[in-house]
Amino acid sequence: MTAPQSFADRLSAAIARTGAPACVGIDPVREKLPPEVQLAAKDDDLTGFRAFSRGIVDAVADLVPAVKFQSACFERYGDFGMLALIESMAYAKERGLIVILDAKRGDIGISADHYAHAAFSVAKADALTVNAYLGADTLEPYLKYPGVGLFVLVRTSNPGSDAIQSQRLADGRTIAQLVAATVASSGKTRKGLCGLSNVGAVVGATKPADAQSMREAMPDTIFLIPGYGAQGGTIDDIRQLVRPGQDLARQGILVTASRSVIYPQNPIGSSWKDSVRQAAADFSLDLAAIRAD
Amino acid sequence: MTAPQSFADRLSAAIARTGAPACVGIDPVREKLPPEVQLAAKDDDLTGFRAFSRGIVDAVADLVPAVKFQSACFERYGDFGMLALIESMAYAKERGLIVILDAKRGDIGISADHYAHAAFSVAKADALTVNAYLGADTLEPYLKYPGVGLFVLVRTSNPGSDAIQSQRLADGRTIAQLVAATVASSGKTRKGLCGLSNVGAVVGATKPADAQSMREAMPDTIFLIPGYGAQGGTIDDIRQLVRPGQDLARQGILVTASRSVIYPQNPIGSSWKDSVRQAAADFSLDLAAIRAD
Repeated sequence: MTAPQSFADRLSAAIARTGAPACVGIDPVREKLPPEVQLAAKDDDLTGFRAFSRGIVDAVADLVPAVKFQSACFERYGDFGMLALIESMAYAKERGLIVILDAKRGDIGISADHYAHAAFSVAKADALTVNAYLGADTLEPYLKYPGVGLFVLVRTSNPGSDAIQSQRLADGRTIAQLVAATVASSGKTRKGLCGLSNVGAVVGATKPADAQSMREAMPDTIFLIPGYGAQGGTIDDIRQLVRPGQDLARQGILVTASRSVIYPQNPIGSSWKDSVRQAAADFSLDLAAIRAD
Repeated sequence: MTAPQSFADRLSAAIARTGAPACVGIDPVREKLPPEVQLAAKDDDLTGFRAFSRGIVDAVADLVPAVKFQSACFERYGDFGMLALIESMAYAKERGLIVILDAKRGDIGISADHYAHAAFSVAKADALTVNAYLGADTLEPYLKYPGVGLFVLVRTSNPGSDAIQSQRLADGRTIAQLVAATVASSGKTRKGLCGLSNVGAVVGATKPADAQSMREAMPDTIFLIPGYGAQGGTIDDIRQLVRPGQDLARQGILVTASRSVIYPQNPIGSSWKDSVRQAAADFSLDLAAIRAD
């Protein structure tokens, strides 16, 4: 039996195939579902959520390498939501997408074991977002699963994150840089053939002042990048996060867009899925324009 | 309509009633379930988990003020696990216990809204553990729910936590002290009539060197304290975390014990529940011995 291909290599290949480091965020919110889906949805189950998630997956499957499911959107519906999440993730995998579970888990050893099982064995995610405040040792249980990836929260895109992440340490680094060093260290021995690590980092596009230090601290790390578009991050901001001198598949970035793609402002075509497809194509095209200097 | 009683006041009253600041952690793991429960359990549902959780609740309901459910243990069973968690928490509330959901959530605004709904409206927790690495603004969505409490991860009991939490800032504080200040600040305007805040903190019993600075930084904060017993924390370590000069109900501590109570080493009586009850009584008695200086 051969070992499964590493997360970094699978993602790299998928980016090369689709031509853009784009990830569509699936964050279903009942009030925002398209009218066609609302009508089909019953109140006491999540038919609408499932139809919406499948529709997004169908609309983008050949355009982008990856989708990211926001766990919170599903968890708010208890066990029904969890079932809808698991089924929707399975469908995205079936359609050939790399599936990231955005659940931002973080707990000590034995509990981390359970979370890893939930993410990788039950929900069958390819990668999971995690929080490292409890220390690097709490990342280990996830990394026992062959072929999976992690994205550790390092520098998040929300305005209030500065109050913690930008604080200076006695050695001159910021707290985000300390966590970045932890990520680089955990990832050093866990690289794919592509040279990128399976231990990635969440680095927002909205903090351009930190871009250079983030890339320096994590030279071979894949950045999962929120904050593009609606939150104010630009293509120029993203360009600063790229690994210099690398081709598209090895630039070490995966940019996420959620609301701007799944709830597009300008309806196109005869179905809501046409509009989503167009928004995903536009997003993908924006990102394809990023080239290493 | 009157506002619901604050979390801090409810907990304080429950500690006064039971005589000890003790919280039993419910962390069910299939392989560890008592044989009687194992036999009744079917493989394809969580009958055993439910029976075990109910049994623990029945055994301790009149002995301790609170129980803490470890979300990860249930999440590893997907939607079935989520249903078992929700039902078990409902049962604990029915039996008059204060119920803490230990899920360590942490995400930006809109996602935090969903997590808050999941914890307080669906699972109906009295309090939730959260991670503040994303900033104090990400705590606000939870605090909109009337009468609930939060426990923010500040200084955790695991050995690897030092690598992040003990690092020194340029201003001389540690990172844990910075997060502690955030907790104190968020909690300042959110106190119960008892004088304690509804924004609590997780502070492990295994870091006695930090005890004084934690209490100084968070004078009116309830500490949820893991690490007692199995992990090495002692009664003397806990005594250092107490608010000085206060009666039992206002000492600002709630000590958790999980494995030592729910999987007791020495069987007593005719049922596994008798052993659990005895272990909880012993735990409670240990803690009742803590007196303010």
